Amino acid sequence: MAMVTSTLPEAARKVAGDALQDTLVDLLGLSLIGKQAHWAIVGPRFRSIHLQLDEVVTLARTHADTVAERCAAIGVAPDGRPETIAGAFALPGPEAGWLRDTRVVQLVVDALGSAVTRLRERVAATAEPDPVTQDLLITITSDLEKQRWMFDAENWPSDG
Amino acid sequence: MAMVTSTLPEAARKVAGDALQDTLVDLLGLSLIGKQAHWAIVGPRFRSIHLQLDEVVTLARTHADTVAERCAAIGVAPDGRPETIAGAFALPGPEAGWLRDTRVVQLVVDALGSAVTRLRERVAATAEPDPVTQDLLITITSDLEKQRWMFDAENWPSDG
Amino acid sequence: MAMVTSTLPEAARKVAGDALQDTLVDLLGLSLIGKQAHWAIVGPRFRSIHLQLDEVVTLARTHADTVAERCAAIGVAPDGRPETIAGAFALPGPEAGWLRDTRVVQLVVDALGSAVTRLRERVAATAEPDPVTQDLLITITSDLEKQRWMFDAENWPSDG
Amino acid sequence: MAMVTSTLPEAARKVAGDALQDTLVDLLGLSLIGKQAHWAIVGPRFRSIHLQLDEVVTLARTHADTVAERCAAIGVAPDGRPETIAGAFALPGPEAGWLRDTRVVQLVVDALGSAVTRLRERVAATAEPDPVTQDLLITITSDLEKQRWMFDAENWPSDG
Amino acid sequence: MAMVTSTLPEAARKVAGDALQDTLVDLLGLSLIGKQAHWAIVGPRFRSIHLQLDEVVTLARTHADTVAERCAAIGVAPDGRPETIAGAFALPGPEAGWLRDTRVVQLVVDALGSAVTRLRERVAATAEPDPVTQDLLITITSDLEKQRWMFDAENWPSDG
Amino acid sequence: MAMVTSTLPEAARKVAGDALQDTLVDLLGLSLIGKQAHWAIVGPRFRSIHLQLDEVVTLARTHADTVAERCAAIGVAPDGRPETIAGAFALPGPEAGWLRDTRVVQLVVDALGSAVTRLRERVAATAEPDPVTQDLLITITSDLEKQRWMFDAENWPSDG
Amino acid sequence: MAMVTSTLPEAARKVAGDALQDTLVDLLGLSLIGKQAHWAIVGPRFRSIHLQLDEVVTLARTHADTVAERCAAIGVAPDGRPETIAGAFALPGPEAGWLRDTRVVQLVVDALGSAVTRLRERVAATAEPDPVTQDLLITITSDLEKQRWMFDAENWPSDG
Amino acid sequence: MAMVTSTLPEAARKVAGDALQDTLVDLLGLSLIGKQAHWAIVGPRFRSIHLQLDEVVTLARTHADTVAERCAAIGVAPDGRPETIAGAFALPGPEAGWLRDTRVVQLVVDALGSAVTRLRERVAATAEPDPVTQDLLITITSDLEKQRWMFDAENWPSDG
Amino acid sequence: MAMVTSTLPEAARKVAGDALQDTLVDLLGLSLIGKQAHWAIVGPRFRSIHLQLDEVVTLARTHADTVAERCAAIGVAPDGRPETIAGAFALPGPEAGWLRDTRVVQLVVDALGSAVTRLRERVAATAEPDPVTQDLLITITSDLEKQRWMFDAENWPSDG
Amino acid sequence: MAMVTSTLPEAARKVAGDALQDTLVDLLGLSLIGKQAHWAIVGPRFRSIHLQLDEVVTLARTHADTVAERCAAIGVAPDGRPETIAGAFALPGPEAGWLRDTRVVQLVVDALGSAVTRLRERVAATAEPDPVTQDLLITITSDLEKQRWMFDAENWPSDG
Amino acid sequence: MAMVTSTLPEAARKVAGDALQDTLVDLLGLSLIGKQAHWAIVGPRFRSIHLQLDEVVTLARTHADTVAERCAAIGVAPDGRPETIAGAFALPGPEAGWLRDTRVVQLVVDALGSAVTRLRERVAATAEPDPVTQDLLITITSDLEKQRWMFDAENWPSDG
Amino acid sequence: MAMVTSTLPEAARKVAGDALQDTLVDLLGLSLIGKQAHWAIVGPRFRSIHLQLDEVVTLARTHADTVAERCAAIGVAPDGRPETIAGAFALPGPEAGWLRDTRVVQLVVDALGSAVTRLRERVAATAEPDPVTQDLLITITSDLEKQRWMFDAENWPSDG
Repeated sequence: MAMVTSTLPEAARKVAGDALQDTLVDLLGLSLIGKQAHWAIVGPRFRSIHLQLDEVVTLARTHADTVAERCAAIGVAPDGRPETIAGAFALPGPEAGWLRDTRVVQLVVDALGSAVTRLRERVAATAEPDPVTQDLLITITSDLEKQRWMFDAENWPSDG
Repeated sequence: MAMVTSTLPEAARKVAGDALQDTLVDLLGLSLIGKQAHWAIVGPRFRSIHLQLDEVVTLARTHADTVAERCAAIGVAPDGRPETIAGAFALPGPEAGWLRDTRVVQLVVDALGSAVTRLRERVAATAEPDPVTQDLLITITSDLEKQRWMFDAENWPSDG
Repeated sequence: MAMVTSTLPEAARKVAGDALQDTLVDLLGLSLIGKQAHWAIVGPRFRSIHLQLDEVVTLARTHADTVAERCAAIGVAPDGRPETIAGAFALPGPEAGWLRDTRVVQLVVDALGSAVTRLRERVAATAEPDPVTQDLLITITSDLEKQRWMFDAENWPSDG
Repeated sequence: MAMVTSTLPEAARKVAGDALQDTLVDLLGLSLIGKQAHWAIVGPRFRSIHLQLDEVVTLARTHADTVAERCAAIGVAPDGRPETIAGAFALPGPEAGWLRDTRVVQLVVDALGSAVTRLRERVAATAEPDPVTQDLLITITSDLEKQRWMFDAENWPSDG
Repeated sequence: MAMVTSTLPEAARKVAGDALQDTLVDLLGLSLIGKQAHWAIVGPRFRSIHLQLDEVVTLARTHADTVAERCAAIGVAPDGRPETIAGAFALPGPEAGWLRDTRVVQLVVDALGSAVTRLRERVAATAEPDPVTQDLLITITSDLEKQRWMFDAENWPSDG
Repeated sequence: MAMVTSTLPEAARKVAGDALQDTLVDLLGLSLIGKQAHWAIVGPRFRSIHLQLDEVVTLARTHADTVAERCAAIGVAPDGRPETIAGAFALPGPEAGWLRDTRVVQLVVDALGSAVTRLRERVAATAEPDPVTQDLLITITSDLEKQRWMFDAENWPSDG
Repeated sequence: MAMVTSTLPEAARKVAGDALQDTLVDLLGLSLIGKQAHWAIVGPRFRSIHLQLDEVVTLARTHADTVAERCAAIGVAPDGRPETIAGAFALPGPEAGWLRDTRVVQLVVDALGSAVTRLRERVAATAEPDPVTQDLLITITSDLEKQRWMFDAENWPSDG
Repeated sequence: MAMVTSTLPEAARKVAGDALQDTLVDLLGLSLIGKQAHWAIVGPRFRSIHLQLDEVVTLARTHADTVAERCAAIGVAPDGRPETIAGAFALPGPEAGWLRDTRVVQLVVDALGSAVTRLRERVAATAEPDPVTQDLLITITSDLEKQRWMFDAENWPSDG
Repeated sequence: MAMVTSTLPEAARKVAGDALQDTLVDLLGLSLIGKQAHWAIVGPRFRSIHLQLDEVVTLARTHADTVAERCAAIGVAPDGRPETIAGAFALPGPEAGWLRDTRVVQLVVDALGSAVTRLRERVAATAEPDPVTQDLLITITSDLEKQRWMFDAENWPSDG
Repeated sequence: MAMVTSTLPEAARKVAGDALQDTLVDLLGLSLIGKQAHWAIVGPRFRSIHLQLDEVVTLARTHADTVAERCAAIGVAPDGRPETIAGAFALPGPEAGWLRDTRVVQLVVDALGSAVTRLRERVAATAEPDPVTQDLLITITSDLEKQRWMFDAENWPSDG
Repeated sequence: MAMVTSTLPEAARKVAGDALQDTLVDLLGLSLIGKQAHWAIVGPRFRSIHLQLDEVVTLARTHADTVAERCAAIGVAPDGRPETIAGAFALPGPEAGWLRDTRVVQLVVDALGSAVTRLRERVAATAEPDPVTQDLLITITSDLEKQRWMFDAENWPSDG
Repeated sequence: MAMVTSTLPEAARKVAGDALQDTLVDLLGLSLIGKQAHWAIVGPRFRSIHLQLDEVVTLARTHADTVAERCAAIGVAPDGRPETIAGAFALPGPEAGWLRDTRVVQLVVDALGSAVTRLRERVAATAEPDPVTQDLLITITSDLEKQRWMFDAENWPSDG
């Protein structure tokens, strides 16, 4: 069968395509566990974290869309099917049932921190083969680091 | 551990909770395969179907949020984690790689038709125990049936 | 020739389809006579009724569109052609020429009251075969009853 | 009974009133058959034509309102009742049941072409007695010709 | 004195009218005690709960308006005067003076829970005499249950 | 129990706090009787007055919120509970049941006139102890006087 | 002193400039008497006419701006100073003091009718020398005739 | 003939009414000469001043409306008819024909300065009889002084 | 190859098509030189003219689109390709490099004046064969003459 | 060098100018320390206070702009340069580094309380020389007192 | 003649300036041929491609503006005059007359592919001399590659 | 005391943190001197420059917020307190009192030019340790260079 053609040479297409596909899985997974925490959270900070989690979800969904379309734009079919996400998602996630607010905050710090570490590797890997893809990954890293800080700051006790 | 209390008696809570949890999985799964098709579609109707799929995704996401919050509101913690979706999703979905536009249209008709059949059973099951949940499921059924018609109409040849 | 397939069994499809087709004619007819009164009204309450009639027309057009699309969604081709409306429209309507404002108010009360009576029969008839269609007809009934009240209240003399 | 007075002499009022009343029937009829095609269309161009038809309907409804209010403004009561439209509508329209997309496109080209021909005669007829009415009819002609072109362009085969 | 006429038979009108009048008092009372808590709350969750209470107030005001207009639409004059609310309001409410945030959260859970219990009885009572009124009461129940969950989730200690 | 501290000396706080609490009761009461009239009005000016009453209600609600927050801001807990309003509301209000439009107009003129008289006394009383509170009361007086004029102008017969 | 140059020959510039200057005075005068009636009206139709008059004023102001800028665009300095309007305004206007609503309606019908008569003469006069100016005057005529109809329709008694 | 009743004692009503009527004439006159300059200005700062003048006009029109409605609200019929403005307007205004930009700037500084001087006298005069009217005049003074500064700043040479 | 059919007779189609094609080239050229001046302008009026030029460009682009679509609507394929514009553009344009603000103002006055002269000839030529096209050309003439005036007014020295 | 002229006598200009310049420094300083706390805050109320601080910053910036422009409007050049603020700012502010949320809340209560005390003195001082300036300072006082209350209410423990 | 000064050293200014000027010509040319295809397209995908082309045109125009302003910002006068575009435009473009939809899709894929290849060279060339310009060119490349993919996907047959 | 953790290694964190802190001071300082010039400017270009300065201020404030939040996001507490800005701000700024428009333009060119030079060094320094921070600094450089060009272009005489 025919293929969507690419404006990148094959080797560059391979590196950029892998980086984008892996990022897609991270972001779709993040959007799902963000929503899960949005629904299952309990505790005195319910409303505050409930709302903040929706910002993370919106961010993850928007970037996932951009990443997948960039993937297609360089001639690689992205894969965001349920079974692919479940099989490849490698960030820490929540257990079933209700979740205390303190637990949610820690969990989001961990998941975002892990996602950032993985993104920084891909930023380095794509610099040479495709600066356009690298530029997109830098933007996503910046946004996730900002979110991670905000949950991390939230994570401190009031005194101590 | 404590629980979010419920305004429903236990038996009703069980029936409504199951109906909502199953619907949540269907809708989250639909939102993922809708996006997958949105990205992977090729063919002369690319733009037209590409845009229409985003309407399905928006619908599925919005209803998933309402369903999960209704679930929590009756004292049942919803479960929308990646592994849960992948394990429980039972609607027909796309294969990996690029997808012809004709294939996409048929696939969406099938997935939505299957989702509607399952919803109609839940509408019947919840009428007695919780008319509030039933009312929500009726609304979702109506929206999915409308989308199914639009893809079905799209599915006809120009002549014949 | 092929047909848009249905998610309803044949008997239910027939009942729901008839209820929707009859409602479509009532609503399209209402939108036409509402506009006619909007244009032909004269008298000291001209502006007030002129504006209120446009709300009725907008309501009738919006519901007509939803009803026709629901009709198609269950596999029945709706019929809203000029000759069909003229042949099947059964609500009281205005005569030709200018219309006094008092005459317009009474006429709208009568037309809406008649439409509501017919809708309540269809609400009862569709409860069993298709609760989704019933839910839509309930919504329309509610909106028309609200409009009927507002014209009825307008219909009282200032003293007496 | 009294009459809305006119700023036009009687002969001019007669010519302009007839032109406006005939245009009103054409536009209201167009809005009804446009909606009918919007609901009954099937085929691979379903979504594209379905959406474009709503632009025609919106245009026809907006101009119908302006035409009827212009009619009243010169002292002639407009007539847009169902029986009047059904009796006087002279443009080609659709048959009952589902409509192939190719059939719909041809039908709209024919209906709009016929409406334009009739409008151009009225543009000529009103130039002298009422340039204000003529100016309105010119605007409507322009809009319908633009819509006619877009359906006509859509009507070509992909090769040939 | 004349009366606004009704589209319901007398017995149905009586049942639906009572259900609507009682719901009106509950909702107007809720809007007043919600505002009271909005103003009098103190404690570390001040801002978060202060804002969330305004959502409850907006909800209560909007539904109160719809309920009262539905009441009028079936020919029963609604009664929302200060003395009526004070005399008939039966939900738990706040004491005078400043209110700790933990106290506010518990109070809203109790008031909403009580309102829901009363609404569910009216949903059952109106199913037969007026499904249109029942449909409206179901919608209100759903919204209040969602709000009750959100305050209940907020009500958990951070650990334990 | 602790108190919200004040930026005003005690004597000034007492005068301003009383003026604000009394104004709060007047405004919340006005918002309730305004809505009551909005729902219960009948007569040929139904729509016109029905809409204008909602402007009064919006005004009363907005100013009530500002007044109560100003009250809290100077260290006095406001009291807007149903029993407080019913006990302290001193403006003329409507009787139960349907209300003729002429009766409604007179009633609103009276209630607003009475509210203005009471406000002008508080404007004088607060000039010295707290010009900030005075400035707020002046604004409210201005808005209520404007509304009173508009109902008063409406109150004239067409000739006489 | 230098002059703004013109794209019209001198004779055409004279005719078009006169037509525009005269129209400017009519429109500015209309905007002032429309506001005067907006403020001074009393009677049972106060609110309805009060609002409609603001539409006339907005229309008059908008067209006045376009007319004056067109005047400048053809190299003629427009004159809209208070003394010019007072000296040249020739439409019927209101007397000082409060104005009954019936009086206001008649007055606006007369003023607009008179303005239309004068505009139609200018439409005829400018057809040859400057079709661009004529087109603008036709648009204004159309809008004023529509307003005149709406006040004229308002002018009828409810029966007779 | 009857009168709109007033919430002010007669002496206060007289003082406040005179202050408001005189302010109305100043503001309507300002709006007319502002537009005149907007149309007739020429020179290298054409666009900049042309736009700024529209801000003055919008300000003058908005305040004129508030002033006239306040006038009516205290039971005095305002007078903004063309002949009244022309007869009573006492601020410096432009001559006929094109106006240099430097001339326009000086003219607006003078007109606004003169208006402010007159307003400050009315602010002093109304403090006692009606603080509500005084508050409105203070707001207008503030806005006109801000505009005067901006034209005055514009009035400096670039060096000197 | 087939052709888009026309609602005009052949002779009329030729005249109108030529007028539209020539106008298209003028407008596209204007949009390009307007942007060029927008970028290359220097001098103390930089910001003021820089912004005003974007209004000319927006106007030219919007009218170009309407003209080209009108051209297609009467069955003539418009031609707006780079080589066509460069070959046929006949208005005066800027030289390469930075442009003084005084130079820019003069240049726009000249280009717009020239465009208006050419348009007026086409207005005359199309009156008979196609009043719809003529009406469009009149609108464009009006807009360009207004822009020309504003640059011409800007063109005066501050004293002189 | 020339000066922007003033509409105030010299003594009044001096008093009002000093009050405005001192207020400007307080507000600019508040906007800077508000942003500092917005960035440096940590603890479980991070998000809630982080957002509320931006409201204080927006308020301070908006009022600073109004105060500075009022200052210029009465002929006094305002001074908001970095060195001026650093030299004259007298409200309590934060230390360098991260800030606990409890610390931030106390700090804002103190800073706003101090600002209010200073403002109330200026309100008294300007009453006589310039009521326009006084009115502006009253508005600012009201807004800062409201913010102070909201942080003060936030400052209470959950129980005690 | 003087020059706009630059923040870049001369050599860097030369490289970046050339890259920007060449990109400007490509983008202005793209905007013209995109519009040409938008107008001249015929075939069953008319509406779908007609709309998508306007997205390309908007993109090209927006980026052209940014590129030209960046060019000026580094002290190089950009050149976007008709003759410059016609002389330097090197992407494949459409022939005169009507264009089949399949032809249009292929043409846009080719033009965008060619533009991307040229841009990637400039991205490499500017990395060292001016990373700010490089960042802008990366953004443009990303957007054009996305558009290229969407037309390429559209370019596949429905089966095969 | 605990610290917000970082996703960067310590050395990279130090370099990026310094670059961000220095940029923060430059931007906050720019926002203050931009506002100062906005208020203190006088001369014939008052309005034009007054408005353009607000664009610079908005830009500086927005970027300052992003820079400070990026600083926190990598685990470095930003410092934007008044004393810090006053102590560290190194760009040229205005003197006290009124400022001629020519003086303001030159001052902004100098301040922005100096800021750009300092930013370009930080862009080079952060490329290796943190490309995310570098990307942000590149964006800011681009925006400031664009503003610098616009003031520089404004800085030319009209002829010479």
